[in-house]
Amino acid sequence: MGVAPTDLANAIRALSMDGVEAANSGHPGMPMGMADVATVLFTKYLKFDPADPKWPDRDRFVLSAGHGSMLIYALLYLTGYEQPTIDDIRQFRQLGSHCAGHPENFELPGVECTTGPLGQGLAMAVGMAIAERHLNAVFDAALVDHRTWVVAGDGCLMEGINHEAVGLAGHLGLGRLNVLWDDNRITIDGAVSLSSSEDIPARYRASGWHVAECDGHDFVDIDRALAEAAADPRPSLVRCRTIIGKGAPNKQGTSKTHGSALGKDEVAAARANLGWHAAPFEIPEDIRKAWLDFGKRGARDHAAWQDRLATHSDRAEFERRIAGDVDLEDAAGWAFSNWDRVPVSVATRKSSEFALEGLTAAMPELVGGSADLTGSNFTKTPVLSNMSAEDYAGRYINYGIREFGMAAAMNGMALHGGVIPFGGTFLVFADYARPAIRLSAIQQARVIYVMTHDSIGVGEDGPTHQPIEHVMSLRMIPNLDVYRPCDAVETAECWALAVAKKDGPSLLALSRQNLQQVRTGGDMLSAKGGYRLRAAIAPRQVVLLATGSEVEIAIAVASALEAQGIGADVVSMPCWSRFEAQDSAYRADVIPLDMLRVSIEAGVTLGWERYTGENGLRIGIDSFGASGPIKALYEHFGLTTDAITPQIVEKLKK
Amino acid sequence: MGVAPTDLANAIRALSMDGVEAANSGHPGMPMGMADVATVLFTKYLKFDPADPKWPDRDRFVLSAGHGSMLIYALLYLTGYEQPTIDDIRQFRQLGSHCAGHPENFELPGVECTTGPLGQGLAMAVGMAIAERHLNAVFDAALVDHRTWVVAGDGCLMEGINHEAVGLAGHLGLGRLNVLWDDNRITIDGAVSLSSSEDIPARYRASGWHVAECDGHDFVDIDRALAEAAADPRPSLVRCRTIIGKGAPNKQGTSKTHGSALGKDEVAAARANLGWHAAPFEIPEDIRKAWLDFGKRGARDHAAWQDRLATHSDRAEFERRIAGDVDLEDAAGWAFSNWDRVPVSVATRKSSEFALEGLTAAMPELVGGSADLTGSNFTKTPVLSNMSAEDYAGRYINYGIREFGMAAAMNGMALHGGVIPFGGTFLVFADYARPAIRLSAIQQARVIYVMTHDSIGVGEDGPTHQPIEHVMSLRMIPNLDVYRPCDAVETAECWALAVAKKDGPSLLALSRQNLQQVRTGGDMLSAKGGYRLRAAIAPRQVVLLATGSEVEIAIAVASALEAQGIGADVVSMPCWSRFEAQDSAYRADVIPLDMLRVSIEAGVTLGWERYTGENGLRIGIDSFGASGPIKALYEHFGLTTDAITPQIVEKLKK
Repeated sequence: MGVAPTDLANAIRALSMDGVEAANSGHPGMPMGMADVATVLFTKYLKFDPADPKWPDRDRFVLSAGHGSMLIYALLYLTGYEQPTIDDIRQFRQLGSHCAGHPENFELPGVECTTGPLGQGLAMAVGMAIAERHLNAVFDAALVDHRTWVVAGDGCLMEGINHEAVGLAGHLGLGRLNVLWDDNRITIDGAVSLSSSEDIPARYRASGWHVAECDGHDFVDIDRALAEAAADPRPSLVRCRTIIGKGAPNKQGTSKTHGSALGKDEVAAARANLGWHAAPFEIPEDIRKAWLDFGKRGARDHAAWQDRLATHSDRAEFERRIAGDVDLEDAAGWAFSNWDRVPVSVATRKSSEFALEGLTAAMPELVGGSADLTGSNFTKTPVLSNMSAEDYAGRYINYGIREFGMAAAMNGMALHGGVIPFGGTFLVFADYARPAIRLSAIQQARVIYVMTHDSIGVGEDGPTHQPIEHVMSLRMIPNLDVYRPCDAVETAECWALAVAKKDGPSLLALSRQNLQQVRTGGDMLSAKGGYRLRAAIAPRQVVLLATGSEVEIAIAVASALEAQGIGADVVSMPCWSRFEAQDSAYRADVIPLDMLRVSIEAGVTLGWERYTGENGLRIGIDSFGASGPIKALYEHFGLTTDAITPQIVEKLKK
Repeated sequence: MGVAPTDLANAIRALSMDGVEAANSGHPGMPMGMADVATVLFTKYLKFDPADPKWPDRDRFVLSAGHGSMLIYALLYLTGYEQPTIDDIRQFRQLGSHCAGHPENFELPGVECTTGPLGQGLAMAVGMAIAERHLNAVFDAALVDHRTWVVAGDGCLMEGINHEAVGLAGHLGLGRLNVLWDDNRITIDGAVSLSSSEDIPARYRASGWHVAECDGHDFVDIDRALAEAAADPRPSLVRCRTIIGKGAPNKQGTSKTHGSALGKDEVAAARANLGWHAAPFEIPEDIRKAWLDFGKRGARDHAAWQDRLATHSDRAEFERRIAGDVDLEDAAGWAFSNWDRVPVSVATRKSSEFALEGLTAAMPELVGGSADLTGSNFTKTPVLSNMSAEDYAGRYINYGIREFGMAAAMNGMALHGGVIPFGGTFLVFADYARPAIRLSAIQQARVIYVMTHDSIGVGEDGPTHQPIEHVMSLRMIPNLDVYRPCDAVETAECWALAVAKKDGPSLLALSRQNLQQVRTGGDMLSAKGGYRLRAAIAPRQVVLLATGSEVEIAIAVASALEAQGIGADVVSMPCWSRFEAQDSAYRADVIPLDMLRVSIEAGVTLGWERYTGENGLRIGIDSFGASGPIKALYEHFGLTTDAITPQIVEKLKK
């Protein structure tokens, strides 16, 4: 090849400058600084085939420093992916462009995950590396044998989640995970030394990582460091000493190149400095061809892999796992398969365990775990053994006290494919994981959150451990199905729905305390999101709306009202997003507008006006909880039949 | 003294066992394991005076492992605090008891902060240590010269926030911060080695900490280690090797002692094992007296300090700072003092800077910062210089890319007193800080969050950076005042209200993009939370409700409606919690029920039904955002006069 690596890298720099300049918005500093490192990675190390971005055994490349999105757009274009086209790149950051401000997995094959919220890309990569090792152990190296490469900046490393991700990766000995740290010593506010004095390599080593270092602008040195990282059996951090905005003669090495266009003059100066004479968005033919040739490098590996798959004894199961289709009826059957063992009065976290027993036995793709609350979340079933560095075939991950890290890792596992992750913690700690839950939803990642202890039913642990605003505020995250089942039947139904959903996350909010079973089975009513659980006997004057542990209270209130001759429907609403997806006739039948509607839920009332109307009653808790036994708390907060019934009677009189 | 330290420590163990046993709920393992270490700390090192729990120059003691709350309750009782009484301890974990499941700062003087959500206590202690060094530099060692001591467990150290807290403390060289790590090698799920392989001391050293080690059950060794920690100029981690549940012969050293009562038999066995023959909740007279004597140890220091204060030249200012009273009218005057420099069309993040310039100049207690977005948040005014290990008098903290750590540190600073912290990040990253924002609210901590880039107005950075559900979901956190001002006048008003509020946090959601000024001043209308900004001219048929950047859209829509002869009020609602605190007559006047009401806000519509009723219109965004220029996004999501007006006209026809 006659093209020098510098020219290959300068193609990335030129496209990055041009894209940002055209948009007059974006982040040229990172792509220009990491262009040399990325060139070595993509031309020599990364296993990929632009002709099939979904090849299951490809290496995963994660741009954790997602603001540097022009780096991945340039690389995908140069190596010959169908998308982005050069026109897509010209439309960088414009509405509707595949080249969004931050890389989005749903916009471009080849973008493995959506990054931008700092720290999470690297933490998702940990999940991808877990999935790889797990599938390698379950199948074999003939089918699964790839690496996960990450480009991360100082921001990714400073965020708290980095500690969780690094700890988990080190503990699990994920040797095929290699993080290329863009060590440019610059943050938005200025020098990294303004806010940090950390010896980062020492910290990584303390968690069992291998650390290599290189001059990020010396191709030979980069090559040596990547080879070292690839060879080491531990996860590797490669410290790449770089100059941010490298090539822009007057701005490089400063935060001025980080987050805005360089400006016409500086772009011209950079072109001169780099010896890059092509017009904007144009790549000289020889360089273009050289890059495309590198893009074809993986085709042979890919073909060999396809040959191995074609004759592999586990081919059907492997393809099933990668496809990820789960039939809802099958899932329901599995979720109910332990039904004869479910007691009448049982916490939904416990009925969740019964459902999970059937599901995990039938679905080897389910990989569970908990953020150190296994015995409280009931997430570990008999078929799940611990995953460890010694046994990646294990299907249960002891995530440790790392809620955010767990959630991000699950995102990575789901995006990798071949596994369906679920993980538990207390619902109140959904706050710790919230940035990753949001990314599950944005990325349409199939992750199942098992959040137990979902209300003041937590009891004595008090307000810091009692969700109040959580259920409602989670309902506000687009694309997230929030389930709050009321008994064992609904719990099994919700599990089946969650498991069968391919294109997004689900979250189950489950009770600590025992709940009465209110249904015996029948149609899968939870699929409607909300349904009439009990019809009024006397002429209907009120509709009671409730979820989870408050459904049995609603039933008792209905009985008390009926005893006074007041007919009351009870509507259970385990999943609002599913209910809203029903047609208006169904919704109007279940929740008629011409009638008093009363919501009962042990959380904030804000939001319930959607269903009660402003003239309805909203029974809930609009302050923080308190420490005390459950019964005392429900009385204190007025969530009892005796406290609620008279309010309804009074309201009806008006 | 004739009482052996073992007996002092066993008093803690006995009370811990008895409290948990009576409640049949709680965590005996940690207090029993750390009883020896705590005994050395409280009898020899901690500077405190039970007669005055609010003595400003006391050492701060933070039980970061808050589940071990019986440790602090026992210590406060034994050293002679007025509360808790022994009856309070008997009522441990009962509704209304001062001895809640987790320690609550609003329940008990002597409990410096509310802990339980793991990792946050230590991170708040960093803030306390910052406040101490800052006030020491601003005043002098005669008035401010104390330490911050923390008891933390493996959970606190494994959480991501620990990385942020440790990084910040190391960078700022907070030598008076000493963390006592309860190294018992046990988590809830079992051995720490199930989930972690980290060399924790090495990690702390990598961030500039000093690490000492001791046998946590050898009083001489503990004493040596604490002395070493106190003497070292760096922040110190003291690794205390302990046995969880130490004293319970059959359960100690296992996770069985962590989170539930030991049981009658094991308590009896522990009493025998410890040689503790007193009845439950009884402390032998000699031990009781010895502990009370230790409790009086600080009185002399306290008296000497009061003498120094009495004659100190800065006494008045110091007392003013500690009292923390800020007059709202004064605050408003300062917030508007740069008024003549405010342009007509300006982003609220920029008008926030103008308000802050006046406030920071007038109020030396304001200590600002940003999580590496200073130039975007506009949080740094000319009077604020950087705080550093070399200059603690600086009033601006470069928090680094540590949103959660910043929020937790601000909680600690606010709880310490003498400073009012404010800190900035992008609103979308409120998710990263959410667990600490919740704790600000629970703890009634005076923290001001400056959250800019508050909608799709973010523009090209796209959905990962565009808040959609954030404003509404923050409104759901009890005790948190969420402000979304619409122009420069409201921004200054909201700043004044936030600064003057003593008993809780405030959050300002501010625009990236320029907004028209819609008011010229006058009464402080934002204090009402919502108010009529424009009255209808034609006969009123509709009331438009909006916040922040959508108020100018509402005004334009009103004009378009008036042009068609449809009278439309415009109501600006910068702060829902303040509006709800108004009387019902005021609320009904501003938002009449007998009229079409339309909300316009660039975020989720769920929640707006509270004010629009179910028959109103809710204009908002119920999906994730997109990457593109601002104008294109507002058009895409239908947030324009042209898109909204016809919907209202149509609705009025029905």
